[in-house]
Amino acid sequence: MAEIGKNSVGHVRNSTGGEPAPKKGNFSNGVGIVQTQMVRLVEPEQPLELECGKRLAPIDVAYETYGQLNETGDNAVLICHALSGDAHVAGCHSPDDRKPGWWDNMVGPGKGIDTNKYFVICSNFLGGCTGTTGPSSINPATQKPYGLDFPIITIGDMVKVQKMLLDELGIKKLLAVIGGSIGGMQVLQWAIQYPDFVKAAIPAATTTHLGAQSIAFDAVGRNAILADANFASGQYKGKEAPDKGLAIARMIGHITYLSEQGMRRKFGRQLRDADKYSYDFNSEFAVETYLEHQGQTFVERFDANSYLYITKAADYFDLKKEYGSLRKAFENVKSRFFVVSFASDWLFTPEQSRAIVDALAANRKDVSYCDIDSSYGHDAFLLETDALGTFLRCFLKATSEPGGQQQPCSRYARSIRTLSRVEQAHRARVDYELIESLVEPDSTVLDVGCGDGRLLANLVRDKNIKGKGIELDQELVLDCICRRLPVIQQDVEQGLSYYADKSFDYVILSQTVQTLKEPQKVFEELLRVGRKVIVSFPNFAHWRCRTQLLLHGKAPITSQLPFGWHDSPNVHFLSLKDFDELCRQLGVKIEKKIPLSKRRLRPVSLVPNLFAEQVVYVTSRNT
Amino acid sequence: MAEIGKNSVGHVRNSTGGEPAPKKGNFSNGVGIVQTQMVRLVEPEQPLELECGKRLAPIDVAYETYGQLNETGDNAVLICHALSGDAHVAGCHSPDDRKPGWWDNMVGPGKGIDTNKYFVICSNFLGGCTGTTGPSSINPATQKPYGLDFPIITIGDMVKVQKMLLDELGIKKLLAVIGGSIGGMQVLQWAIQYPDFVKAAIPAATTTHLGAQSIAFDAVGRNAILADANFASGQYKGKEAPDKGLAIARMIGHITYLSEQGMRRKFGRQLRDADKYSYDFNSEFAVETYLEHQGQTFVERFDANSYLYITKAADYFDLKKEYGSLRKAFENVKSRFFVVSFASDWLFTPEQSRAIVDALAANRKDVSYCDIDSSYGHDAFLLETDALGTFLRCFLKATSEPGGQQQPCSRYARSIRTLSRVEQAHRARVDYELIESLVEPDSTVLDVGCGDGRLLANLVRDKNIKGKGIELDQELVLDCICRRLPVIQQDVEQGLSYYADKSFDYVILSQTVQTLKEPQKVFEELLRVGRKVIVSFPNFAHWRCRTQLLLHGKAPITSQLPFGWHDSPNVHFLSLKDFDELCRQLGVKIEKKIPLSKRRLRPVSLVPNLFAEQVVYVTSRNT
Repeated sequence: MAEIGKNSVGHVRNSTGGEPAPKKGNFSNGVGIVQTQMVRLVEPEQPLELECGKRLAPIDVAYETYGQLNETGDNAVLICHALSGDAHVAGCHSPDDRKPGWWDNMVGPGKGIDTNKYFVICSNFLGGCTGTTGPSSINPATQKPYGLDFPIITIGDMVKVQKMLLDELGIKKLLAVIGGSIGGMQVLQWAIQYPDFVKAAIPAATTTHLGAQSIAFDAVGRNAILADANFASGQYKGKEAPDKGLAIARMIGHITYLSEQGMRRKFGRQLRDADKYSYDFNSEFAVETYLEHQGQTFVERFDANSYLYITKAADYFDLKKEYGSLRKAFENVKSRFFVVSFASDWLFTPEQSRAIVDALAANRKDVSYCDIDSSYGHDAFLLETDALGTFLRCFLKATSEPGGQQQPCSRYARSIRTLSRVEQAHRARVDYELIESLVEPDSTVLDVGCGDGRLLANLVRDKNIKGKGIELDQELVLDCICRRLPVIQQDVEQGLSYYADKSFDYVILSQTVQTLKEPQKVFEELLRVGRKVIVSFPNFAHWRCRTQLLLHGKAPITSQLPFGWHDSPNVHFLSLKDFDELCRQLGVKIEKKIPLSKRRLRPVSLVPNLFAEQVVYVTSRNT
Repeated sequence: MAEIGKNSVGHVRNSTGGEPAPKKGNFSNGVGIVQTQMVRLVEPEQPLELECGKRLAPIDVAYETYGQLNETGDNAVLICHALSGDAHVAGCHSPDDRKPGWWDNMVGPGKGIDTNKYFVICSNFLGGCTGTTGPSSINPATQKPYGLDFPIITIGDMVKVQKMLLDELGIKKLLAVIGGSIGGMQVLQWAIQYPDFVKAAIPAATTTHLGAQSIAFDAVGRNAILADANFASGQYKGKEAPDKGLAIARMIGHITYLSEQGMRRKFGRQLRDADKYSYDFNSEFAVETYLEHQGQTFVERFDANSYLYITKAADYFDLKKEYGSLRKAFENVKSRFFVVSFASDWLFTPEQSRAIVDALAANRKDVSYCDIDSSYGHDAFLLETDALGTFLRCFLKATSEPGGQQQPCSRYARSIRTLSRVEQAHRARVDYELIESLVEPDSTVLDVGCGDGRLLANLVRDKNIKGKGIELDQELVLDCICRRLPVIQQDVEQGLSYYADKSFDYVILSQTVQTLKEPQKVFEELLRVGRKVIVSFPNFAHWRCRTQLLLHGKAPITSQLPFGWHDSPNVHFLSLKDFDELCRQLGVKIEKKIPLSKRRLRPVSLVPNLFAEQVVYVTSRNT
């Protein structure tokens, strides 16, 4: 096995050369026929030192590649697979192969990870059971499978072996490393372990550590395998395997990969093939049958020993424990990050992704985040290929094209809902131009409610600022990513605790304060993280408002406050005087106050609280 | 076994006779020493017809009682236990017994279910393994344990046997039937199956049917038992039992009984007795050790056969399937209901409890509902004895004292947060007196945002109305329950789809419309369910508001609108004219419009939109 596949970069046949994709099999519109390659990375005489302190040799690795490495060698994308994945990401192994690779919808010509543009690599990780050395490999000391004599391996060990593979393939630097779930852990480890090697990191549906509940599910699964009488300390080769235990472990796992609402929609209480209960213990609910089927098919393709070792590696993964804190863990990374979670994922939750984002933001790293709306649960990283693919395409494009783009590319977005009325109002902002003039060149700027990133992009272009955005809307987040702006999808009312005091020269809150539930709390948080806070809002004490209320006795409707009383997104109404008073109460210094008339940028000098339709404040507070 | 314990009502020794509770053991302040009683309810010659179509005999039942049946026989409370419970609810079996009954914190003198007041009964259910006939009982046909030859039993079968026990004990009617989880299913079944027998039903943390995810967890647990080589079709008596399988089933179950946040808080990633990983497959995380311990202790006290049969009974429970719809299922119940869920319960969720509430409300039954704030997950029904006990005490008291009370008794409430500012404002309402005068005697009234139920209680007392309330605050819900008012804890913005069109003569929305996110949507929903909708709100066009804005250029602050612009709970501002216009737009008839001055009830006749500080509308719409 030692030399097979060495130096095989780009030798893998695929359909990226412009030939029409073959019609047979399931690989049309894909990378075509591919082969898994084998390479020996660790020779018997030079064993690899593992994190557990033990040494392992030899180590063979199974991998596949798609697309071509370009001349400058800067288009390599590494994909890291999850628990039950393997090196076979895309394409088919033969014309009659009915089952393409596990991420075939994502990886291929013109797909989210475009093999026309990128050279894509994926290897079966250390401890796996589809080619790479693992606990079912032959232990050279005994000439029997390792079984439980295989050393405990870690995510760090897996990544170390992947790095050896890339060295072997002659890759000098990765454009991106991408992975979901346990694959996402490897992505994090990559960015930390090899900071100079990774230009962009995309951890999806993952976590920096498993919580108690996830460890519990893993532990019960392992218990089921270890309790199976056929397990025999892992020495079941040639005998009956611990299939029952492994199937139970898989069934438990599978429940955690789906969301409750997803299962409800897919199965409900449907009975397999009857209307009436069978009044016995045969599998009769559709969901039982499905799970049993999942368990059965899994034991045919997966190895119980590997299941033990991989889940243990996941349980052990704990960046906080390893580095003292998450902040320290990410201190030295140099990659751009796009962190992505899925709303209904209860195994590795959006909150866990947010912890990654917060730690990166605390370190002032280039991090973007999106929580993709999905009901598929943890499996969404495999299934939401439209939405996730759009984000990956845009993020990779912005990363690989130096300088990024000035235009959003949300024409790619297919999933996504129409703009909210609030955002429509934002888009018509006239205060942008003025705000731009208030920002000093070369400063750092946080735009809260940054929309499609227009203001930030202008500031980057015209004033060379370093800008970050916060935005709630998924489509607008995508726009910002296309503009190569770091953007975090969140509601600003959740606070910005991840940013240290005075992290930014400017924080901008444009036409948003009146829509906040707790405007004072948010304002104070912005004053904490910014040296100066620029706030703009419509003036409720404009003479039109006053006279409408006075003369007509109705809630005012004006061009700046265009909504009816009952359907307005504005939930607080304030005037220049009201805001002055709040600033005085909070000990906030008003550095500038620029009342604006209608839709022009000419400041209003005469009785501004009466004649200004909107206003821009520059404020600051020493904390 | 046949005659043991027959006619043993009240013979159980307990501490309710006024003797001080013994100090030894864990039973101080409890019911003291108790004994489990046995009774044969089904003789071999008269087998019981089960729902599955099979017949079963003999049937013996284990039960315990606490407190005394009173002379009128109207103080009997039946408790139904959950999967792993038994008849032993409270007290200890001997002075040296270190472990009191499973709900000892809830049942006893002065406790939530007060054995000084109530005669409490609990029996091990059919199919159980702690005294009552189940799959490990001896099959008279073979003189061996039934094992898998035991017929599949249902929740309905369990309840039927419980009814036979109560008949045997001479109970003519239950004051209440109470149970959590699978116990709650029995409560629902009781109310449906024996409507005249149950005065009040309290289903806690339960559901009308298991969803796909819960069935899946049960199925995997059963799989683990059935896959255990020791299971041997349930014929393991005298041999090694399928302990490994049962322990795995229990471990899976246990994860679902806790909440993720509860597990995180209790265990986190704590290692059992080390700082460093052991790099082997021994149990080392605290949560692993805990689960394994739970599994081990469970197999010592529980029987694998019973586990199969009980979880199957739970999986089969489906009121919708049985009755065609939930609404039909509850059509003929006569009990008052108090439905209770726990916020962090992800096994039987608050939404599932709400489905029970909605179906009962749709049938115009007397139903109250509270979702108790707790981080204990499904286990909360066993652990939140303070909060749940307070609700049970008040609900039982209101139920057993005819006519209920006029005073709230929230002095009992201990859990509970201070009143919101919104509610403080509500409490100062002056519009109550006027609204009371607008309601016709003997009508039906829904008070949305009913607070502590004062208005409804007055209407019940003075006008003999039938009133229901909706309220968000847990403490105020308790106040309503004490007043014997049916009250549902919910946010009205979620809609009232469970109420049919024109379910009420009057719907009241007092001083709330301006705090709603979507006032129009809510208003239309109220118009749908009520013949007349009474709405009151502060008038934003009062001259003080107008002049404050006109002259001072600030968001108005008045006695009726007392909040600052940034901390107001009011999110919409409207005048009489604004509301008139909305009514016109919606085709709503304004039957009465009563502008009110300041804090007096004298209507304002002169330019009301200028001089009224608040207003009360009576509106209606034919839909």
